[in-house]
Amino acid sequence: MRFGIFYEHQLPRPWGPDSERQLIADALEQIEVADRVGFDCVWEVEHHFLEEYSHSSASDVFLAAASQRARNIRLGFGILPLPPGFEHPARRAETVATLDLVSNGRVDFGTGETSSGAELAGFGVDRATKREQWEEAIDVVTRMMVEEPFAGWDGRFGSMPPRNVVPKPVQKPHPPLWVACSRRETIRMAATRGIGALSFSFVEPEEAGAWVDEYYSVLASEECVPAGFAVNPNVAVVLPMMLAHDEAEAIERGIDGAHFFGYSLAHYYVFGDHRPGRTNIWDEFQERRDEVGFARHIVRPDQAPLGVRILQEGLGSLRGAIGTPEQVRELVSRYEQAGVDQIIFVLQAGRNRHEHIVESLELFGAEVLPQFAGEAREAREAEKAARLSDAVAAALARREPARASDPAYVIAPIDSGPPAATAGRNGRSPGARAASLAQDLVDRAVTGGEQAFAAFVHRSDDRRLERIVGSDAGLRVLFSGMTARYRPDAVPGFAGSVLYDLRLADGTAKPWSVDVGPERAVAYAGRSPDPALTMRVAVADFVRIAAHDLDPGKALMTGRLTFEGNLSIAMRLGEMFGETSAL
Amino acid sequence: MRFGIFYEHQLPRPWGPDSERQLIADALEQIEVADRVGFDCVWEVEHHFLEEYSHSSASDVFLAAASQRARNIRLGFGILPLPPGFEHPARRAETVATLDLVSNGRVDFGTGETSSGAELAGFGVDRATKREQWEEAIDVVTRMMVEEPFAGWDGRFGSMPPRNVVPKPVQKPHPPLWVACSRRETIRMAATRGIGALSFSFVEPEEAGAWVDEYYSVLASEECVPAGFAVNPNVAVVLPMMLAHDEAEAIERGIDGAHFFGYSLAHYYVFGDHRPGRTNIWDEFQERRDEVGFARHIVRPDQAPLGVRILQEGLGSLRGAIGTPEQVRELVSRYEQAGVDQIIFVLQAGRNRHEHIVESLELFGAEVLPQFAGEAREAREAEKAARLSDAVAAALARREPARASDPAYVIAPIDSGPPAATAGRNGRSPGARAASLAQDLVDRAVTGGEQAFAAFVHRSDDRRLERIVGSDAGLRVLFSGMTARYRPDAVPGFAGSVLYDLRLADGTAKPWSVDVGPERAVAYAGRSPDPALTMRVAVADFVRIAAHDLDPGKALMTGRLTFEGNLSIAMRLGEMFGETSAL
Repeated sequence: MRFGIFYEHQLPRPWGPDSERQLIADALEQIEVADRVGFDCVWEVEHHFLEEYSHSSASDVFLAAASQRARNIRLGFGILPLPPGFEHPARRAETVATLDLVSNGRVDFGTGETSSGAELAGFGVDRATKREQWEEAIDVVTRMMVEEPFAGWDGRFGSMPPRNVVPKPVQKPHPPLWVACSRRETIRMAATRGIGALSFSFVEPEEAGAWVDEYYSVLASEECVPAGFAVNPNVAVVLPMMLAHDEAEAIERGIDGAHFFGYSLAHYYVFGDHRPGRTNIWDEFQERRDEVGFARHIVRPDQAPLGVRILQEGLGSLRGAIGTPEQVRELVSRYEQAGVDQIIFVLQAGRNRHEHIVESLELFGAEVLPQFAGEAREAREAEKAARLSDAVAAALARREPARASDPAYVIAPIDSGPPAATAGRNGRSPGARAASLAQDLVDRAVTGGEQAFAAFVHRSDDRRLERIVGSDAGLRVLFSGMTARYRPDAVPGFAGSVLYDLRLADGTAKPWSVDVGPERAVAYAGRSPDPALTMRVAVADFVRIAAHDLDPGKALMTGRLTFEGNLSIAMRLGEMFGETSAL
Repeated sequence: MRFGIFYEHQLPRPWGPDSERQLIADALEQIEVADRVGFDCVWEVEHHFLEEYSHSSASDVFLAAASQRARNIRLGFGILPLPPGFEHPARRAETVATLDLVSNGRVDFGTGETSSGAELAGFGVDRATKREQWEEAIDVVTRMMVEEPFAGWDGRFGSMPPRNVVPKPVQKPHPPLWVACSRRETIRMAATRGIGALSFSFVEPEEAGAWVDEYYSVLASEECVPAGFAVNPNVAVVLPMMLAHDEAEAIERGIDGAHFFGYSLAHYYVFGDHRPGRTNIWDEFQERRDEVGFARHIVRPDQAPLGVRILQEGLGSLRGAIGTPEQVRELVSRYEQAGVDQIIFVLQAGRNRHEHIVESLELFGAEVLPQFAGEAREAREAEKAARLSDAVAAALARREPARASDPAYVIAPIDSGPPAATAGRNGRSPGARAASLAQDLVDRAVTGGEQAFAAFVHRSDDRRLERIVGSDAGLRVLFSGMTARYRPDAVPGFAGSVLYDLRLADGTAKPWSVDVGPERAVAYAGRSPDPALTMRVAVADFVRIAAHDLDPGKALMTGRLTFEGNLSIAMRLGEMFGETSAL
């Protein structure tokens, strides 16, 4: 049996200015304790907008912080919702891999769909297809972690061209996969996909036993076709926990937290009408807990709601591990006998107090955990691995192998436009697109140094130069850059126009003019009526001169460039418009 | 003057199995050193798919890890691309806030657009509108961190209903904002939006001076209308760095890294044709560095490319802080005199060695940094704050205030469907949607305990029950759940049909039948031709009985429920189909 702790970052109102910071700081301290006393994994949820119920919306950040505070405990996403509306699958793959790197291979990759209306509608995720979205995304995400390069995605819920998604995780082929389950069918589904089942039902050991048996029998059957490139045969169940040597004390410390957990969950998922930023769930819980089955005090035992009766009558799934170390040892044994592989305890719930949580973790580590760890566990796990190894190998053989992308596929830095779908949605004229490309080129030429611009020009043929820099929009960018760098002191006293009589290879004229004054220069497309100087040159040559790829002296001598008018101005053009101007 | 270090996580090929892990581990160690010797901020880029150039695709994870290794240094996103195609603005707000919580308020929130074709096309982000996307997203993200609840987003590039985005950052109203700049116009734009300018051009001190002057004059003018809810008046420039007491040694240690940085940047942004997973940029760099201006050795000085000449002729922007502590002190002074607020050094570049980086950081902390820190800096910063305070207040007064959402806005957990836009895209029949809702309801009823289902039913009127659970799809879910729980031993020896003759309030018949056998039970919509038992009841009452909200005995006595046929079977229905079945 392995042991985990689970965080939703619950924060009942009212909130002070420091509440969220303290909540997180306490949790990190608890994880240090859990790590020290031998817990195997900390699991962190990802929820959005579920104020009071869960302030854990960036589990990756929290787990990454935890990775440097606790050096042995594993770090479980519990879970990352995979429908692409929440986050692009590439971002999920990158996040999981980077956490695996900073933690030196300690990630468990729990996945799921999410089902609260607050979250689905918040991110515009379609409820009816979220299972299919999960199916599509888990294939994409695992391929991203395995394929070098990722061969691409062309699916019902998104698409992506081939890319090498970096970094890759430490654990090969990828961290163990899990899926959130809330009922028997999902657990069965987990088995058919060869991934761990994270059961968030508060399930009794004996019922869990039936689920576990079915899980392993399906996993070992031909029905199992792995979702990832490795099989993770594990069933974990989640239970509330609070330990004290005195049973009544444990219940006193843990009952409100466990009840608020259940109430606030039901608020968001079942019965609550939620006013963002206004609803006070804690107050409503206090008012209504009796009515919905979370009564705090019982007048007549036979009138008590189910939850309370179970809490008094024995250690059941609703009570979980709230009790004495002895009671919890016995409970854990029952789950162990049922074949459950990991119990994940929820301690941080409602207003459960930090010091009680720390005390419970210490007690668990001292008085419960040792009975289930050590050599017996090692032997049992080795035996399990041996028993399943043939079935796992057979399952993996049924899986479609990683794909290979076309070796000829090339990404060009400048020409790459948006994919057709996006272009359609945010459609821009070709001119706007060329302007944007040219602008980026100029930006990057500056950033990367002149060399980069020169190299781009050097490696481009005339057609490419005409298309990108020589377009109307590209020329606008180039001339704007020139006038921005205008230095009036280069030609003191001169005021007049320079006409750039540019031509495309097909003969089309692309005239631009710059009016030069004592303070500034203004460029515009078209012919100045009375130019002091006219420069005639092909657009591509003009760009090459600007990039120092073509020597203007040579161009003059070979007739590719001609001047007409005030030649003394011609000699000062470079100085007038800065080094990267044309001339 | 403040000092930062900048990470792209460069990783030239070839890669070993441990290369990425070691790269990250080294970087974390370097940050510990930087923190100890007095650096102010570590900046981390977010890039995707730019293998060799940048393996930093989850900067939040890396910075969160760094937050627990270094307890004083600030943590800068340098930058997070804001176009929503990379990541939903809510995820950005959540990430920034959570990092601010785990670090106790040490986040600098750098933003930008991203311009590589590899990334834009990879995420389907439209190049032509990325500036407008940034404009829209920075407004949304900052409002999410300030508004309680966020009042919603209905824009050109996305939308979101009102939600309380949690957690909120420690720094109020939000962490300092920055924007990536690569040219004078963007720096000017940063000033008009009242945010810090992160200049990624390698710019000379004197040119930087002109930029800084313009920045502060625009920021103090009426042109400044802040993007966020606080003004961050700061200009930072990025420079390569490598320090050694011997100048030649510093150049020897730093030149290849700085050159590879420039070459690989130009590869992705300007001239490279990239084959994902196949192109070897390091090898190409070795072959072509001379050709594109990154020559390693010079035969004749006058033939040397620009970059090398500058590197030898003086401390310029392309050389940056590669040299002796004395040279770098002098360089920093020039930037200080130019009015630059922060210099961000790039040490991790190309194959620069970990021990050289650590040595440089130590040298900088011992021999350069002290001259620019201490009381003089405090005084200068206080003077600057006082000088700008009126302008900042005036600018903030020009900004549109945070919005308030309609207090009557309510999220209903069950009825919330996807927004119209998504429904159109992934359109499903109303039946499918109802099935999905009903499925979630049953899932959540199990997870949250019976109480939750009961409470939902208790708080719903008949019309709502009919719509959600009483739809064709909802009934399918309910009956599937019943048959899945079928226990043949409850009625040993019996085989036959039970007809549930259900009716809606408007009289419409909704008959369902369950064929019960020795091993399993099968449910289907419609009338069994020869039922052993017929139950007649309204759909809403049927659901209420299933949820234990209506006592079947009472329903029988009041005639709301009637049986016909084998009444001994009627008495066993509850046992047959488990506790949560109808009866």
